[in-house]
Amino acid sequence: MTITGKQLFTTLASDGTLTVEVADSQFADPTGNQVLVRMEAAPINPSDLALLLGQADLENGEYSPGKLVAPMPQPFHGAMKGRHDQRLPVGNEGAGTVIAAGDGELAQSLLGQRIACVPGGAYAQYAIADASMCLPLGDLTAEQGASAFVNPMTALGFVENARMDGQGAIVHAAAASNLGQMLVKICQEDGIALVNIVRKPDQAELLRGLGAEWVVDSSQPDFMDRLAEAIDATGAFYGFDPIGGGTTVDACFKAMERVAVGKMADYNRYGSNQQKRMFIYGRLDTGPTILTPSYGFGWVLSGWLLTPFLQSAGFEVVGRMRQRVLAGLTTTFASSYKARVTLDQMLEKDAATDYRAMKTGEKYLVTPWE
Amino acid sequence: MTITGKQLFTTLASDGTLTVEVADSQFADPTGNQVLVRMEAAPINPSDLALLLGQADLENGEYSPGKLVAPMPQPFHGAMKGRHDQRLPVGNEGAGTVIAAGDGELAQSLLGQRIACVPGGAYAQYAIADASMCLPLGDLTAEQGASAFVNPMTALGFVENARMDGQGAIVHAAAASNLGQMLVKICQEDGIALVNIVRKPDQAELLRGLGAEWVVDSSQPDFMDRLAEAIDATGAFYGFDPIGGGTTVDACFKAMERVAVGKMADYNRYGSNQQKRMFIYGRLDTGPTILTPSYGFGWVLSGWLLTPFLQSAGFEVVGRMRQRVLAGLTTTFASSYKARVTLDQMLEKDAATDYRAMKTGEKYLVTPWE
Repeated sequence: MTITGKQLFTTLASDGTLTVEVADSQFADPTGNQVLVRMEAAPINPSDLALLLGQADLENGEYSPGKLVAPMPQPFHGAMKGRHDQRLPVGNEGAGTVIAAGDGELAQSLLGQRIACVPGGAYAQYAIADASMCLPLGDLTAEQGASAFVNPMTALGFVENARMDGQGAIVHAAAASNLGQMLVKICQEDGIALVNIVRKPDQAELLRGLGAEWVVDSSQPDFMDRLAEAIDATGAFYGFDPIGGGTTVDACFKAMERVAVGKMADYNRYGSNQQKRMFIYGRLDTGPTILTPSYGFGWVLSGWLLTPFLQSAGFEVVGRMRQRVLAGLTTTFASSYKARVTLDQMLEKDAATDYRAMKTGEKYLVTPWE
Repeated sequence: MTITGKQLFTTLASDGTLTVEVADSQFADPTGNQVLVRMEAAPINPSDLALLLGQADLENGEYSPGKLVAPMPQPFHGAMKGRHDQRLPVGNEGAGTVIAAGDGELAQSLLGQRIACVPGGAYAQYAIADASMCLPLGDLTAEQGASAFVNPMTALGFVENARMDGQGAIVHAAAASNLGQMLVKICQEDGIALVNIVRKPDQAELLRGLGAEWVVDSSQPDFMDRLAEAIDATGAFYGFDPIGGGTTVDACFKAMERVAVGKMADYNRYGSNQQKRMFIYGRLDTGPTILTPSYGFGWVLSGWLLTPFLQSAGFEVVGRMRQRVLAGLTTTFASSYKARVTLDQMLEKDAATDYRAMKTGEKYLVTPWE
């Protein structure tokens, strides 16, 4: 038996045309530890957008009900050769109700429950999900549970990773994001010092309103001085950046090195011995990352992704993180949304242009049945 | 009792003027584990040049016997605030004869011997060195032993570091350098696969003449294809780059990712799971490092310096490395020099301009008594 429902697909043709469309799809019966979920809400996260729209030229797209066709400029088209001509489902996470389950014990136990899940095809009326990744929501609504995975687990992951590396303080860039706000609360709860870098005065206000102690605004002329001051006060030589492109990481390394050099008695041509560590976990700016030779050789920069981190952290740590998320879904880990859109509305020019801009605090929620 | 001899000093004044001059200096009696060395030969390594001349405008310098005065342009002048107005000795390493020793047993045992040493002020007629870092040269000449530390230990350090990280293959950029040629020989001896990146056809020939199997020339139009091919054949997802600025690291990560993605069954928007690791160990190019968002998040880039590596490697490993260097000083670890200069000749315009260019295979040797 199969069930039919609407589903969103994105296809980048080898001729450079991106087509995103809503189509009827067949969902087969779940097997083993799978569950079939009637999807009720799914957020549009930055991590979904690379696949959904990428750098497509939305201004010169063609829009019809349930369909968006837009040219993908170079070098983005060439860089995604691996997906050319493949019709791909989109949507990392969401929430809904389990309407069928495989034979597996865990899958069976979820039958009829409202759950948060990570199906990878969340922009759809139905989705097949792995029961072991589902979080039963109890009395919470689908909207409350829709963003229970990506942002909460990432923010918690930063703190877990810092602890594994013996760090008691963190620098976070683009810190007024939904995820950044969660991180402020987690760090308060856990006694971790947090240096928040924001890009606008109102974002600084927002974080101070949450009780954030160290907030530095990169739009201000004294940004580097304030950043160094906060790093000096907190001892944060360890940070996370979702911007990726440009000079955010460079600014952090520079400020860290300035603090370290300020404590050195003698000049050293190779810079300080202070180890400086930054992680890039997103690409809000798809331009190149710029690293200047101004902080010696005592630095490490790497990419950071949730899934490999969870795999390396192990079952027990992940279980603890999930329980904490569930307990705090309406407080520490609450998400807010600027707008709700249906699958068809996702593909309208104004909506797509707006959510693709990834403006801080302006997240969209997809509600496929409304 | 003190002894008087010529010594070279570099001073960057806070007004932006760099002065490098030869002056008479007093060398006090060595104490404890120190030895006083009559310096006979010292190489000018890239790692000396940042302190010695940096990015000073040599074209518009003033030159007189034993003295060079040149403007230091911005941003380099501002970036070296820590050394402003300090008169600093230069020269990491060299070789000479121990003419006085402290009371320490090791220091005493070196009295009268020709040794290689790491005094930090090697561009001088005398230098005080730490006996525990000295390598007795036996019948070897000072020229043969002058470069016994920086390049040999760095090249060996790469292989040790790779082994610690479980790697059996290495990518090396600017691979035709003195150090690069040593690395070719070490990797042959140790059965480590080595992908050599060079910048000119004659450098490729030079390395092939040493028996290097994988040599790719970044000046050729098919560079990226050849690099990916070599990485695929060797499994080298781990490399060292002395250039630093520009896109060398980026090219390596891109080629590594291309190989990894080529083995994936399904498209993944986050790139491959293949861990890619690069180290920047020099700054032949002082421009910014450019990292494009084209290899997912499974990569780590960091600075690499010899001294912290040796400290982390521990006494036993370092002892083994030193013995190997000594045994191979006229073979695996032999250095060759384009020219010999006295301390005064170091400060002539043509010589300074030439050795500061750090052309591959054109290293200078300082002979302070000639």
